[in-house]
Amino acid sequence: MLSNRKEIHVEWGDCDPAGIVYYPRFFEYFDSCTNALFERAGFKKQEMLKKYGLLGIPMVDTRGQFYAPAAFGDTVVVETRIKEWGRSSFEVEHKLYNGDQLAAEGSEKRVWTVRDPGVAKGMRSEAIPQEVKDRFARE
Amino acid sequence: MLSNRKEIHVEWGDCDPAGIVYYPRFFEYFDSCTNALFERAGFKKQEMLKKYGLLGIPMVDTRGQFYAPAAFGDTVVVETRIKEWGRSSFEVEHKLYNGDQLAAEGSEKRVWTVRDPGVAKGMRSEAIPQEVKDRFARE
Amino acid sequence: MLSNRKEIHVEWGDCDPAGIVYYPRFFEYFDSCTNALFERAGFKKQEMLKKYGLLGIPMVDTRGQFYAPAAFGDTVVVETRIKEWGRSSFEVEHKLYNGDQLAAEGSEKRVWTVRDPGVAKGMRSEAIPQEVKDRFARE
Amino acid sequence: MLSNRKEIHVEWGDCDPAGIVYYPRFFEYFDSCTNALFERAGFKKQEMLKKYGLLGIPMVDTRGQFYAPAAFGDTVVVETRIKEWGRSSFEVEHKLYNGDQLAAEGSEKRVWTVRDPGVAKGMRSEAIPQEVKDRFARE
Repeated sequence: MLSNRKEIHVEWGDCDPAGIVYYPRFFEYFDSCTNALFERAGFKKQEMLKKYGLLGIPMVDTRGQFYAPAAFGDTVVVETRIKEWGRSSFEVEHKLYNGDQLAAEGSEKRVWTVRDPGVAKGMRSEAIPQEVKDRFARE
Repeated sequence: MLSNRKEIHVEWGDCDPAGIVYYPRFFEYFDSCTNALFERAGFKKQEMLKKYGLLGIPMVDTRGQFYAPAAFGDTVVVETRIKEWGRSSFEVEHKLYNGDQLAAEGSEKRVWTVRDPGVAKGMRSEAIPQEVKDRFARE
Repeated sequence: MLSNRKEIHVEWGDCDPAGIVYYPRFFEYFDSCTNALFERAGFKKQEMLKKYGLLGIPMVDTRGQFYAPAAFGDTVVVETRIKEWGRSSFEVEHKLYNGDQLAAEGSEKRVWTVRDPGVAKGMRSEAIPQEVKDRFARE
Repeated sequence: MLSNRKEIHVEWGDCDPAGIVYYPRFFEYFDSCTNALFERAGFKKQEMLKKYGLLGIPMVDTRGQFYAPAAFGDTVVVETRIKEWGRSSFEVEHKLYNGDQLAAEGSEKRVWTVRDPGVAKGMRSEAIPQEVKDRFARE
């Protein structure tokens, strides 16, 4: 399975008055890592949205576990991979390292969501194209 | 001229490791205050976008001056008014009070921007409808 | 058990290019709701930090489930309560309503964390004072 | 004068419902660029804070001018330099390029601010050490 490693420099503005990363920022990191994984698989988000009529890949369920703090000036590394493909949803897994230490983990369940003016709220889920899944099957 | 007062509770997550509001958050506050002023004038953003084919009212020039810090737990009050209408742009002014003290000021120049698939980037400026300006002329 | 209801106006800047709340912002909402619950119990965050030598109540495990989108201009209501007290940790539960609809849920596990210059990273967990827990026992 | 170039990948979460960078994010970009310039001069923020007893280098006046939008997936480059040193304040200048195009400019006035428990709010400005200024004098 394709995976991606992304370095993230923890910024001053990512940290709270306790001097450590404000935890919602970890979810921003994870989101950028999921996009980077797709990009590595050949799907730049803007092109992917256009090609498949996607509204996006919104989150339906996500969890973050935080084992050790990170602070501004730290450079963390996040390893990201698809954990499982469903029909119209998929799961993503993130492991965030601060130096040698596993400092946080994230898991995500997202839905392949297309624009459809004919339904309520203008969006609905759709089967993920096989060609998309196939791109993640290589190392 | 119509003006609006908006109370904002400074959140823990708005503050940086120095324990004070991270200054880009003041621009988020000001942006929400401009939207609140329009809403007070009768223009909820979602309806306004639909009615006028607006993409938004993007910022072209903004300045923030910060005289005194604000910290989590503070409740600040922002007074907002249109300073001047141009043909397709307008200027907004914010005064942010922390207790009795003028703690920050913001000024904005924004452009009335409509969607237009026929031009580069799909957007262009347009004259601000007179009926919009008129709604701000009352107290 | 004490609970708190907090109204949150979804801002333009909270939303992503799909026009719906960018999901890390829901965690910012939930964090502000936990602080509001403590404030309702009589513990303003700044005073609480000082009184107990707290660094904060950092997150160790959190989950968000998103059932329906929210968009700028929506006003959502979040109901927050302590689900369970441990010795030095506690669990918080959030239910976010958009109109009549349960649109999202959040759960949190946080740790009562004090400053201690004598240990690595300068922070350690500590037993939550009984007087703190007692304040949440009333309705 | 020392200057720094920093590449920034515009993230999905940095963009608003108009699909372009939400302008307060540009101030977050600029802030990280000022920190990167100091780091390039040999002053990692955490070490600098400790060495000089600094609370930070808070903003007192900042302006952003936005000439062309940037969207998620774009990689922008920001050129940053100190424009002028005062006694206890200094000015920073940012030029943000999207491809060949100058898309935004930022200017900042910041104050060298130390912790001082003996004064109101626990902070005051102080003369910037000459050795700090000297480090920016080389190319």
